[in-house]
Amino acid sequence: MENIYLGIDIGGTDIKGGTVNKNGSIINEMTITSEVEKGVDHVLERITDLVRQLEQSAGEKNTIAGVGLGIPGQIDFDNQILLNSPNLPLFKNIDVPSRLKSSLHLPVVWDNDANLAALGEFTYGAGKNVSEMMMITLGTGIGSGLILRNEIYHGCKGFGGEFGHLSINPDGPKCNCGSHGCVEAYAGTKGIIRTFEEITKAGTRTLLNKDDIKELTPKKISKAAEKGDQAAAETYNKVGFYIGVGLAGVVNLLNLEMIVVGGGIAKAGNLILDPVRKAVKEYTLEDPGDIINIVPAKLGNKAGLIGAAHLAFLNAEDH
Amino acid sequence: MENIYLGIDIGGTDIKGGTVNKNGSIINEMTITSEVEKGVDHVLERITDLVRQLEQSAGEKNTIAGVGLGIPGQIDFDNQILLNSPNLPLFKNIDVPSRLKSSLHLPVVWDNDANLAALGEFTYGAGKNVSEMMMITLGTGIGSGLILRNEIYHGCKGFGGEFGHLSINPDGPKCNCGSHGCVEAYAGTKGIIRTFEEITKAGTRTLLNKDDIKELTPKKISKAAEKGDQAAAETYNKVGFYIGVGLAGVVNLLNLEMIVVGGGIAKAGNLILDPVRKAVKEYTLEDPGDIINIVPAKLGNKAGLIGAAHLAFLNAEDH
Repeated sequence: MENIYLGIDIGGTDIKGGTVNKNGSIINEMTITSEVEKGVDHVLERITDLVRQLEQSAGEKNTIAGVGLGIPGQIDFDNQILLNSPNLPLFKNIDVPSRLKSSLHLPVVWDNDANLAALGEFTYGAGKNVSEMMMITLGTGIGSGLILRNEIYHGCKGFGGEFGHLSINPDGPKCNCGSHGCVEAYAGTKGIIRTFEEITKAGTRTLLNKDDIKELTPKKISKAAEKGDQAAAETYNKVGFYIGVGLAGVVNLLNLEMIVVGGGIAKAGNLILDPVRKAVKEYTLEDPGDIINIVPAKLGNKAGLIGAAHLAFLNAEDH
Repeated sequence: MENIYLGIDIGGTDIKGGTVNKNGSIINEMTITSEVEKGVDHVLERITDLVRQLEQSAGEKNTIAGVGLGIPGQIDFDNQILLNSPNLPLFKNIDVPSRLKSSLHLPVVWDNDANLAALGEFTYGAGKNVSEMMMITLGTGIGSGLILRNEIYHGCKGFGGEFGHLSINPDGPKCNCGSHGCVEAYAGTKGIIRTFEEITKAGTRTLLNKDDIKELTPKKISKAAEKGDQAAAETYNKVGFYIGVGLAGVVNLLNLEMIVVGGGIAKAGNLILDPVRKAVKEYTLEDPGDIINIVPAKLGNKAGLIGAAHLAFLNAEDH
């Protein structure tokens, strides 16, 4: 018999589940729709069903020894309660692990999904050999998780790791959070589109046609950039620069060894990573700037699931 | 017999030494000149003499069980070597603790002085009841030390904690470090004076006369502000704002419980702390922004010495 661990990544649209062995390899995985609008009990039942199915598919050789849960929201770890989650609006002040524990009869541990993606990359992905790293996930917003001294860093109440809301210009564009000049205000989806619009308005040419421009997405811009579109390339240069200025501050503060970059926008590859690296070099002190390594994520959209399963493994080891 | 610990705070001008008991109270202290220009051996001999004298003054009831050393420079902890120190230019690649150990026949441990000031405030000063804090020291430059999960945070190679070089405006004023818009470029001595000059040039009135303005210091500006000088008050408002924007980023990233503010410029009290607090509130997310507490340091210029002695105590406890 081998102990394996179950990772669950709860999102507003889908719930991903997977059994993972001690080497971080996914044995089996399933995705179901979240149906969050049908209420907390309904979603928790769906998760219970998902776990049952994954248990059955685990095979006779394997025993599921614990469940790890990733949730896109603010967790109160002292009281083991999900305070709130923009993607799961009905999950307000819900004790998710204790409720799943009683239906699953398995140990259930949890963390924020960005933290678990960082844990996944740290344990089995790009950050395997480092002790201090941050993972940022570039998407609609900017998620981030910190690993300090080989462990997820939570801060005093679990709110740590909000790199996206570091302001790099107090007079900069307004951010969704209400503040100004946050990295996310420049490099989230909205910021990328605004930057492209500013650049084309200033006269730089683009190959994108009117229909494309009406419904702009970061993906369209990065595809255009790959084809040599000047406005699109400048957009990614600028966005990368802003991300890099923000990261440089973190590198000076925390002397990290590695920054792992994942998420949809990171698929633009060196188009975005090169200007990030250049700005980090320019805005860091010499010593920490020489050390830092900025690399693409390795586990793709499985990082959160693998990290969740690994959290369950760590919890079992502790006991 | 009671074990006591000896703290030493090495600066470019003075070396402070003191015996400290387990409660963080200084039993005896002495200050000697550093005479750094006379070379490494000479300075180390002076430190050895200082320790001998403090040993003799410790009294028969007390045994010195270890020495803690604070140095204003970059330490390579893996190799136990001082890489460099702007204030001790001859101390390049010097194995300070092992050399003192062999002359003192006592355990010697060390850390960066800003880290030890943070440790002092954390253990016996303003940060007594918190687990995550940063201490910043406002002076010519901005020093800082991080306590995360109840321990000094060093980063992967000991370069962590450089809050002063977090850029809050990539197009901002040039910093001594070569980068632009660092908090230090706004709130170090030079930045404060430049801000005052900008404000008076823009037409705001000042009570300071021409002689004062020729040789401006942050102290003169804060004294003027206390007397109701409009330009001086605006200067501290602006400087506090910039510090606060930088701190807000750290609070969002690390969810600290407390920021302790010390150093010469912090003597301006609420004149500087109130605008800092206001900007932190404005530029943080709601949850971490509600938690953070920004307070003046309690141990004054003894924090480094007390922190150094406490490091020696922690080291003895470990063994």
